[in-house]
Amino acid sequence: MQVMTYKTKGVIEYVNIEESDGRYLAEPLAADHDIPLFDRSPYDGFAIKASENDVSGVNLLIVDEIGAGEVSPHILQEGEAIRIMTGAQIPNGADCVIMLEDVEEITSGGYRFIKPKINVKKGENISFRGEELKSGHHLVDNGTVVTPGVKALLATFGYAKVPVVRKPVVSIIATGTELLDIHEPIQPGKIRNSNGYMIESQVIKAGAIPYRISVSEDRLETILEKVEESLVSSDILITTGGVSVGDYDLLPEIYEKLGANVLFNKIAMRPGSVTTVAELNGKLLFGLSGNPSACFVGFELFARPILRHWLHSDKPFLQQRQAYLCSSFEKPNTFTRFIRGRYIYDDGKIKVSTVGLDKSSTVSSLAWADCLICLPGGDSSFKVDELIDTIDLNDQIGSVHPWTEVK
Amino acid sequence: MQVMTYKTKGVIEYVNIEESDGRYLAEPLAADHDIPLFDRSPYDGFAIKASENDVSGVNLLIVDEIGAGEVSPHILQEGEAIRIMTGAQIPNGADCVIMLEDVEEITSGGYRFIKPKINVKKGENISFRGEELKSGHHLVDNGTVVTPGVKALLATFGYAKVPVVRKPVVSIIATGTELLDIHEPIQPGKIRNSNGYMIESQVIKAGAIPYRISVSEDRLETILEKVEESLVSSDILITTGGVSVGDYDLLPEIYEKLGANVLFNKIAMRPGSVTTVAELNGKLLFGLSGNPSACFVGFELFARPILRHWLHSDKPFLQQRQAYLCSSFEKPNTFTRFIRGRYIYDDGKIKVSTVGLDKSSTVSSLAWADCLICLPGGDSSFKVDELIDTIDLNDQIGSVHPWTEVK
Repeated sequence: MQVMTYKTKGVIEYVNIEESDGRYLAEPLAADHDIPLFDRSPYDGFAIKASENDVSGVNLLIVDEIGAGEVSPHILQEGEAIRIMTGAQIPNGADCVIMLEDVEEITSGGYRFIKPKINVKKGENISFRGEELKSGHHLVDNGTVVTPGVKALLATFGYAKVPVVRKPVVSIIATGTELLDIHEPIQPGKIRNSNGYMIESQVIKAGAIPYRISVSEDRLETILEKVEESLVSSDILITTGGVSVGDYDLLPEIYEKLGANVLFNKIAMRPGSVTTVAELNGKLLFGLSGNPSACFVGFELFARPILRHWLHSDKPFLQQRQAYLCSSFEKPNTFTRFIRGRYIYDDGKIKVSTVGLDKSSTVSSLAWADCLICLPGGDSSFKVDELIDTIDLNDQIGSVHPWTEVK
Repeated sequence: MQVMTYKTKGVIEYVNIEESDGRYLAEPLAADHDIPLFDRSPYDGFAIKASENDVSGVNLLIVDEIGAGEVSPHILQEGEAIRIMTGAQIPNGADCVIMLEDVEEITSGGYRFIKPKINVKKGENISFRGEELKSGHHLVDNGTVVTPGVKALLATFGYAKVPVVRKPVVSIIATGTELLDIHEPIQPGKIRNSNGYMIESQVIKAGAIPYRISVSEDRLETILEKVEESLVSSDILITTGGVSVGDYDLLPEIYEKLGANVLFNKIAMRPGSVTTVAELNGKLLFGLSGNPSACFVGFELFARPILRHWLHSDKPFLQQRQAYLCSSFEKPNTFTRFIRGRYIYDDGKIKVSTVGLDKSSTVSSLAWADCLICLPGGDSSFKVDELIDTIDLNDQIGSVHPWTEVK
C-alpha cells in the first residue's frame, strides 16, 4: 500500500508497570531467568529421597518444614522427609515429593514420622528448573499490546519500568460550515460534529493520542492556519470533510498551497472514494470524507496501519477472515464495498450480517458494527451463505496483509 | 450462578465526552431528534421542482446557491434551480435534486441556467427527515461500552457530558511469603508477584479501577489488617493465594474471623478448584488461587461478571462460542477444564488450538491466549475436529448465560 512508504517507527519511552496497560512494547520480551527458577514442589506434601527399595509402609523421620518462599538448610538423607508446601524449593538431597494425601502421619517417641501409602519414583512431583521457560526464551514481540497475560510476564521478569513506544500525536480537524459544536443547540441546515469525536475515539483505540478536535468552517485561510499549526504540534494530521469536488471542498487547494505531495485523492471503494492522503516533510495528512461511515472506513483502512506501524507492529493491518453472508447483495458495484457488519458465531461457523442502514451518511450503524464486509468491485453479485472476506474491527493481533482488493 | 446473588449496580456519574472512551453508559441512548433533521441533498447538484412535463432539455434559471450549513430564503418555483451542496437543506418549493453531472450549465443574457440532461422525479435524490433515525429511536442499551461508533452517536445527540457508571474500586492483595516485589532481585525459593499485576490488568480490562497491589506474607494478622482496610476503601476485594488446604493457607481463617459468609470454597473445575467467594455486608471477597492460570480463570469466570453487572450490563458473562479442536484431549478428567487457547479462523470455520504448556502454574501461555477451551468433566475424551465450547476472552458484547457446566 502506497501510504506505507511513509511509515515511521516511534521512539521508546519507559513507563511504570502500573501504567503500562494497553501500551505497545518497544522491545521484544524474553525470559531473563528460568521458570521455575528452582526445582519446586507443585503440591503440598513431603520431599523425600526415592529408594531402590520401597518407601511404601516405611517410617520416614520428619526433619524440617518448608513454607513457600523458604529454603531448608537441611540436606535430606534416606529415611528422612521434609514437609513442603506448594511452590516451595525442593531441599538438597531430596529427589521426589509424595503428596499429603498419600501418607499417614505418625508421632512416636516424641518424633514425627510419615508412613507413605504408595511408592514414588525419583523425579516424581517435581517442577524442574526451566521446565516452563528457559532463560533467554523469546516471549512476545515488540509491538505487542500489554494485556493481563503480558503484564504478568512483565512482572515475573521484574519490569518495574516497561519499555513502550511513545504514542503518536494525531491532530484532528473537522471541516464544514454545517458543523455545530457539541455544546450548540441544533439549528436549521446544520448538524453536530460527530466525525471529530469518532476519529478521536478511533485514534485512542489504535493506541495513539488525539491532539484536539478543532472544527473549521469552509474558509481557506481558517483551515490552512489550523492545518499549519497541527503540522507543528503533532505527528499525523487527520481532517474530515472538504475532499470532494464541490465548490466548498477546499482541501485539494490546501495541499497545493502547502506544497504537499498528494499520494492519492480518489480510490475505487465505497464508502470513502474521496479519501485523500498527502505527505509533507515525512508527515502524513489524511483527508477523510465528511460522511461518517466513509470517514470511519477511511481511518481504519489507511490511518490505523500507519499508527500501528509507529507502535512497532509488524502486522499493522486489521485481520481479515472469511465469513458466510447472512444476506445477499444482488446489485453488482464497480467499486469495492466495505459494509458495516456484525459477526454471528454459529456451531463453529462464522457468519456475518449487515447492521442498520448502509448509506455512507449513516452514523447509527457504526455503533453496532464489529466488522467490515468486503465485497470486491466488478460484475459479481453476492448470495446468502457465500463465503466472503471481512475485516475484524476489534482485532488486536493484526495482519501483514493489507486488503489487496483496493489500490 | 450463586455469586450473582450479591451483584450490585453502580451509580451514575457524568464525564466529558472527550473522557468517555471505554466507559460504560449508565443510561440507554436514544435519538433526541430525527436524523436527518431536515430533508437534505445527498449529492452536489441542483434543487429543482419536478414537473409533469419533462425538465430534460429545458433551461432552468439558477436563483441561489446553498452551501452545507446554509439555508436558502428563496421559495423555489417551477423553471428555477438552486445550486445545492452535499448535506445542505433542500430549499422550500424544491422537491428533487438533479446531480451536477446530469446538467449542462449555460450563461445567457447575464443569467445563469442549467439544462438537465435527464428527467428526475419528485423525491429523487433527497435524504428525507427521519429517514435514518426517528426521534426517540432506541440506539444502545445502558451498560454499553463507549466505542468510536457509540461516541459518534453521543456527539450527534449533543452529549457534551456523558452519563456513565462510576467504576467499582477493586482492592488487590497478593498473599504468599514466597512473593518478591517487582523491584526486588530474584532470591532462592522466591518468585516475583505476577498475579497482583495480572489481576490489576484484568480489573482495568473489565472496566473497573484497581485500588492498589499489596503483597502480604503468610501471616494472619498482616493479611487480616490489609483485608479490613480494603473493605473500607473499595467495593470489591480480590486476594490471590492462601485459599488451599496447606498450613500457610490463611484465608479460610480470615473469612471466619471477619464473620464473612463463604459462598463456596471449592469448585469442580481445573484450574481454579480452590477458588473461594465470600460475602460480608454485601461486599464480595474473591479468594483466587495463587497459581497464575487458576487465578486468571477464577477472575474471568467469577469476578468479571460481578464487575460487568456493576457497570449495568445485562450480559455480564463472557460470550461462549463453539469451535473445532485442533488437538485432542485423550485423558478424561472428572473436573471441568478451562484450557488457554487461541482462535484460528479458517475458511469460515472457527478452530481453537492450545497455547504453550497448560499447567496451572504456567504464566507464559496467558500472554498468548485469547480464549478458554471448556472441556466438561466426566468420562469423555475430546478428539481433533470435535466441536467444543470456548469462552472468548476479548468479548465486549457479553452473554446472559454463565458457563453452566460448573456449579
